[in-house]
This record gives sequence, structure tokens and C-alpha cells, in this order.
Amino acid sequence: MQTFFCTISSESQALLNEEETRHLKVLRVKVADLIDCVDGAGGIYKCRVSEIRKDSTALEVIESTKIEGRDNFKLHLYVAPTKNAERMEWFLEKAVETGLDALTFIETEHSEKHRVNMQRMERIAISALKQSGQLYLPELNGLKSLKDIEPEGSVFFAHCGKGEKRSLKSLFEKTPPSGNIHVFIGPEGDFSNDEIMAFKSKDYVAITLGPSRLRTETAALYSVMVVNALS
Amino acid sequence: MQTFFCTISSESQALLNEEETRHLKVLRVKVADLIDCVDGAGGIYKCRVSEIRKDSTALEVIESTKIEGRDNFKLHLYVAPTKNAERMEWFLEKAVETGLDALTFIETEHSEKHRVNMQRMERIAISALKQSGQLYLPELNGLKSLKDIEPEGSVFFAHCGKGEKRSLKSLFEKTPPSGNIHVFIGPEGDFSNDEIMAFKSKDYVAITLGPSRLRTETAALYSVMVVNALS
Repeated sequence: MQTFFCTISSESQALLNEEETRHLKVLRVKVADLIDCVDGAGGIYKCRVSEIRKDSTALEVIESTKIEGRDNFKLHLYVAPTKNAERMEWFLEKAVETGLDALTFIETEHSEKHRVNMQRMERIAISALKQSGQLYLPELNGLKSLKDIEPEGSVFFAHCGKGEKRSLKSLFEKTPPSGNIHVFIGPEGDFSNDEIMAFKSKDYVAITLGPSRLRTETAALYSVMVVNALS
Repeated sequence: MQTFFCTISSESQALLNEEETRHLKVLRVKVADLIDCVDGAGGIYKCRVSEIRKDSTALEVIESTKIEGRDNFKLHLYVAPTKNAERMEWFLEKAVETGLDALTFIETEHSEKHRVNMQRMERIAISALKQSGQLYLPELNGLKSLKDIEPEGSVFFAHCGKGEKRSLKSLFEKTPPSGNIHVFIGPEGDFSNDEIMAFKSKDYVAITLGPSRLRTETAALYSVMVVNALS
């Protein structure tokens, strides 16, 4: 049975949005049927369909379970959107499958793309969540300027320039990821020298993602997969 | 300056194929111009264009350098093609960027796709090679039946069923990858029980790629990225 993504509106009531309502209709679910839902925040529900409208569905919560998320670390990725939006979309799909806590799109000096369709991003994240059995949807944040971001925790940034860099293995093989981990991935033209200097002045740690030149979305996914694998 | 992918035909001569010849023309390169080439086997060349034909270009090799590939380990991935060919194509692009030595497509009991366009796969691999600065093209092998594959070295397989499994971290954190490493990734419907039994009878090691249900291409890429990161 297909799982639906719902929003909990009160202790005993939940809602499906327009897209989930469309899935429900395709699957010929009727009023009074029981369906399985998740809320992207660790909640798993058994619900009874109370009303199917044009663009939403009202549900009565029959049973609920809360599964705690990982508590050892939280991974927050910051990435400049790629010119080709599809590359960001597949990155997000794969990152949700693997495990990501937050994603913030960043405006950088060399950014070539200044818009992100966040609604579409959310749809992709929800679809990957349902497909992979992940229970936590990452927090998704639209474009922010680098100077407006002040992360708390361990902060890393990947760039292709010269200089001392740590590998993720050397950082996490002895002491696995813990607390808030923030990783900044540059745009297709890389971070500017000024941006790199600013990161260094804040004691952010420069990291290498291997010997070759990874595309932006490959670098972002590499960070998510490897930090997860080393945890 | 753009790098071209060439085939070395003798010590002092090389060829560009039809696609590379098209790039050459787009970039308005002329006879007698110098271009940079790679051969996907560690060779880097400075070549002079001697003749531009409709579907190939003849080159004279002026300078050549050979960069040795990694000698600590070779990673060979075996994957059942996904129904959606694009998913395999992006996997290959990202795997080449990250570093992969060989890829073999496998026929499995639950396979839903029984054809792979190997020419297209090769084009994608070459394009990713040039873009990422990698110098070694993976060996690409078309569909083979599982029973015709007899890998030598350390063999691992990822499946979603129950049973004891090792994580890549636990396998490689103390003794980094070495020798020939073979990883089998199942089809969208997973390996069958018979296939899993056959793997176990050959002492292949079952691995887990984390707690969630990864798509086939995500699982394949996770293996490539994490084995590289742990090396």
C-alpha cells in the first residue's frame, strides 16, 4: 500500500494537499478507507479518509507513532543552485534518500542562477521521502546571501582552489560526525577569493572531496553520502 | 581551452571520433592548430590537427605524458540497469567524476530492463571524464548474466533483505580499500533469494548502505563515493 504525505492539523485530524489528493484519487481510495501516512517529522499514521475535496483530503487519525530521528548529528548543506535546475532536483532526491537535515540555497559571487522553484523542490523531497522510507523531510530554505548565514556548530566549505584542505575521512574517521555539521558547496564557477577569505576568517574548515573536479551537484551529494557513511 | 578525447593509433598519430570532430568544428579549430587531448588511459597529449574529415580528425602527437592511475585499489561495480535509462546515465556521469575503474551491467532475476545503449553510456563517460579532469575511463561492459561473472578479489553485494551485513565504514576504516574490489548492486526489485544464496555460497560479503531504501542508482553511486572517500 502506498504511503501518503500528510499535514497534521490537530491531534486527531490530518490533511492531504492537492498533489497527495491526486494520488489518492488515482489509487481509487474512497471515503472511510484506511490509509498509511507520514508527516516528514518522524510521525507515522493510520488514518481514515473523512472527506475528499477537489484540492485536499481530510483525514481522521486513528493511530499514530513517532520515530525519533538520529540524535548524533544534524547535517546542513548550503549549495549554490546550478544553471540546470534538473541537476539540483536530482541532488535533492538522492540527498533525501540518503539522509539530510537541512538544505539552504546560497547566493554567491559567481552564482549564475538566482531563482529556485522551492515548491518543486519540496515536491521532489516529499516524493523521495515516501519512496525511500525516510521519515524526516529536510528543512528547505530558499536563496540566502552568504553574509546572512551564521551557522552554529562545525562548518566546512569545499572549493577547488589551492591551500590546505582536510578530507572528510580525516575529519570523521576517529571522531564520527556529532552536533551540527554545516557544509558549504560552491557554485559552478567556485567560491570567489573574497568568499574563501571570509570563510577562513570565521575559522570554517576547507575540505577536499577527492582529486578530481566534481560538478556542484556531485560535490553536494558526495558530502551528504560520505558524512552519512562515516557516522 | 577545451580538452578532446582521442584514440592513439600509433606513437605519433591519434584520431578524434565523430563526436569529438563535431566539437572541434564548433570550436572553429583548423588544420595545423594545437589541441590538448586525453585518451582515457592516463595519457595526456598535445596534438597538431593534420586533417579534419566529416566523421573523424587525424592528429599528429607533439608531446605526450602518461599519468599513472591509482594503484592502491580498483573498484568494479556491477549494476542491473534501471527501467528509466536516464537514471543509469546520471549514475555513470557521477561515478566517472568520482572515480570508477569498471562497470558491468548485470541481468538478474528481477531485472525489468534487458537492454543498455552502451554507445550512449560511453559518450556520457567520455564527457564526464573531460569535464572532471579524470584521466582514466572506466572499462564499460554490456549486460552479462550473473552466473557468467567470476570476479577475483574482494566481493560485496548490497541487498535490502534481512540478515547480517557489514557497513562500508566497518569494512574499510581500519584497512583502506586495496586490490580488486567488486560491488554488486541489485535491480529495482532487489536480488532474489536464490541470487542472495548463491552470493553467500561464494563467500561474497553482504553490505548495508545505510538505514533507508536507496534507489538502484543511488545505491550504486553511494558505493562508488564511499569506497573512494575511505581510500
